[in-house]
Amino acid sequence: MTKKQDVMFKKMALIGIGLIGSSIARAARQKGLVTEISCSARTHDTRRTALELGVVDEAFEQAIDAVKDADLVILCTPVGTYEKLAEEIAPVLKKGALVSDVGSVKQMVVEAMEPHIPEGVDFVPGHPISGTEKSGPAAGFAELFENRWCILTPSRKSTEEAVEKLSDFWKGLGSDIEVMDPRHHDLVLAITSHIPHLVAYNIVGTADDLEEVTQSEVIKYSAGGFRDFTRLAASDPTMWRDVFLHNKEAVLEMLGRFSEDLTALQRAIRWGDGDALFQMFSRTRAIRRQIIDAGQETAEADFGRSTHIED
Amino acid sequence: MTKKQDVMFKKMALIGIGLIGSSIARAARQKGLVTEISCSARTHDTRRTALELGVVDEAFEQAIDAVKDADLVILCTPVGTYEKLAEEIAPVLKKGALVSDVGSVKQMVVEAMEPHIPEGVDFVPGHPISGTEKSGPAAGFAELFENRWCILTPSRKSTEEAVEKLSDFWKGLGSDIEVMDPRHHDLVLAITSHIPHLVAYNIVGTADDLEEVTQSEVIKYSAGGFRDFTRLAASDPTMWRDVFLHNKEAVLEMLGRFSEDLTALQRAIRWGDGDALFQMFSRTRAIRRQIIDAGQETAEADFGRSTHIED
Repeated sequence: MTKKQDVMFKKMALIGIGLIGSSIARAARQKGLVTEISCSARTHDTRRTALELGVVDEAFEQAIDAVKDADLVILCTPVGTYEKLAEEIAPVLKKGALVSDVGSVKQMVVEAMEPHIPEGVDFVPGHPISGTEKSGPAAGFAELFENRWCILTPSRKSTEEAVEKLSDFWKGLGSDIEVMDPRHHDLVLAITSHIPHLVAYNIVGTADDLEEVTQSEVIKYSAGGFRDFTRLAASDPTMWRDVFLHNKEAVLEMLGRFSEDLTALQRAIRWGDGDALFQMFSRTRAIRRQIIDAGQETAEADFGRSTHIED
Repeated sequence: MTKKQDVMFKKMALIGIGLIGSSIARAARQKGLVTEISCSARTHDTRRTALELGVVDEAFEQAIDAVKDADLVILCTPVGTYEKLAEEIAPVLKKGALVSDVGSVKQMVVEAMEPHIPEGVDFVPGHPISGTEKSGPAAGFAELFENRWCILTPSRKSTEEAVEKLSDFWKGLGSDIEVMDPRHHDLVLAITSHIPHLVAYNIVGTADDLEEVTQSEVIKYSAGGFRDFTRLAASDPTMWRDVFLHNKEAVLEMLGRFSEDLTALQRAIRWGDGDALFQMFSRTRAIRRQIIDAGQETAEADFGRSTHIED
């Protein structure tokens, strides 16, 4: 797993060094894909933590200082910051550098960044489909991307050579690669990631607002199913605000379908239509089986939580 | 964990021997709470598996044969079967026996069973808040109830002595006990368990129906959040059909609130109200923290799934 590979980029700059940024740094260093790593982060604490953990060589407050002489620049901040950052770093980007990102929406990233990318600099947006509910540089780990998909969404400015280079980089981090149209990415992620997060945030909020059921009761009896939603609902609020603001169309489209289907279930409950409920509940098992077979989930019952009993 | 305790019931009869029934059998045997265990199950395969696993001493097709001479009878079948079962077993119940169940709804259980319980037989409905997405006798394990809550919902026929006895039995299996009014139980579980399952079934169904996004894409990119819902959506369809048919009022009430809240989020997305989204996404982290502190969830990032990499 820690097999060293050939150095692909002399210097890598990470704009933002949270869960994803710091995991890229750890993995790239461990696999020997880069020689030098710089980063930028707005807060002093984050920069100090990243330096103390040894995941970067240099940490700056301003992105413009981190990207100097970098051969690979990856934006790892909430997508709402991208346009301004692209504008800021454009003048100092090294000729021949490759600029990418890890944002959860892609069409908007192309629109916000591409106009600012100077001639002679490559631009290939990307999105690793992995993460945890934790945030910050200390939460990262080198194995985060192993056996997970990374989607690249080339724009008109992306050369084939650059796509291939970025693809090799992510393969080096352990990922499988898929190349996709940015708009299609946004639709796929709306249902596989954005709606699940929205629904999770929503149900936790609904439970928190009840008067008839106390918060203490919600917490005590959460093993009945509720707790499964709290992991997603503990994700970074700024990142997710930006996702919903910037993938509006696809999210509203999928949300419309979700709500229609939920109304049908509601109606089946109201009218006591057991056959409709049974039919609906029967067809969903197969999908989980396939997700486990595809290596995207563990088959341990209850994720092994029930057997992790401490004495 | 395997400390032997005093025998509490000479013979225990389990009507139904799936995940919960077989876990009760294993735990009660391991802790030495019962001497003899009989069960009933409709299908021959289930009876054979239960006998082969050694979790029961006897297995019958008919409940009436299993409950003969039993001191403790626990219904572990979908709640829709309870009324008929109560009527069937009533004539052969031993004087002084204690009848209970593990159903996920409770007011309906009181209404369906209580009228059939004969004089001299105790009746105390119960609900262990634990389980996994797996079904069948082979899926059970003795530790399932450890550090989990078991809610008892006494009816008018429940004597204080019987409540205490059942409470001691579940404590013996490793559970913490809460005594609650059946109607309040149904409201609490509607939000902590029933709505989460309904929403999980629904989102998996919505994803399955899309034309723009293929099933293969949903599976490949499920690590973005979708997979968290598939565990609940892999639960037993018959059990869950019965839950929704028999906790209609509370589920419809909670579903109404959930949908209202979701509409508010939808509106915030449509109008680009980032502040409302941020505020909503910020208040949900604290609840997860409390669930972890209460021992009802593991704190491992991503449930430790991302670090379970196989080489």
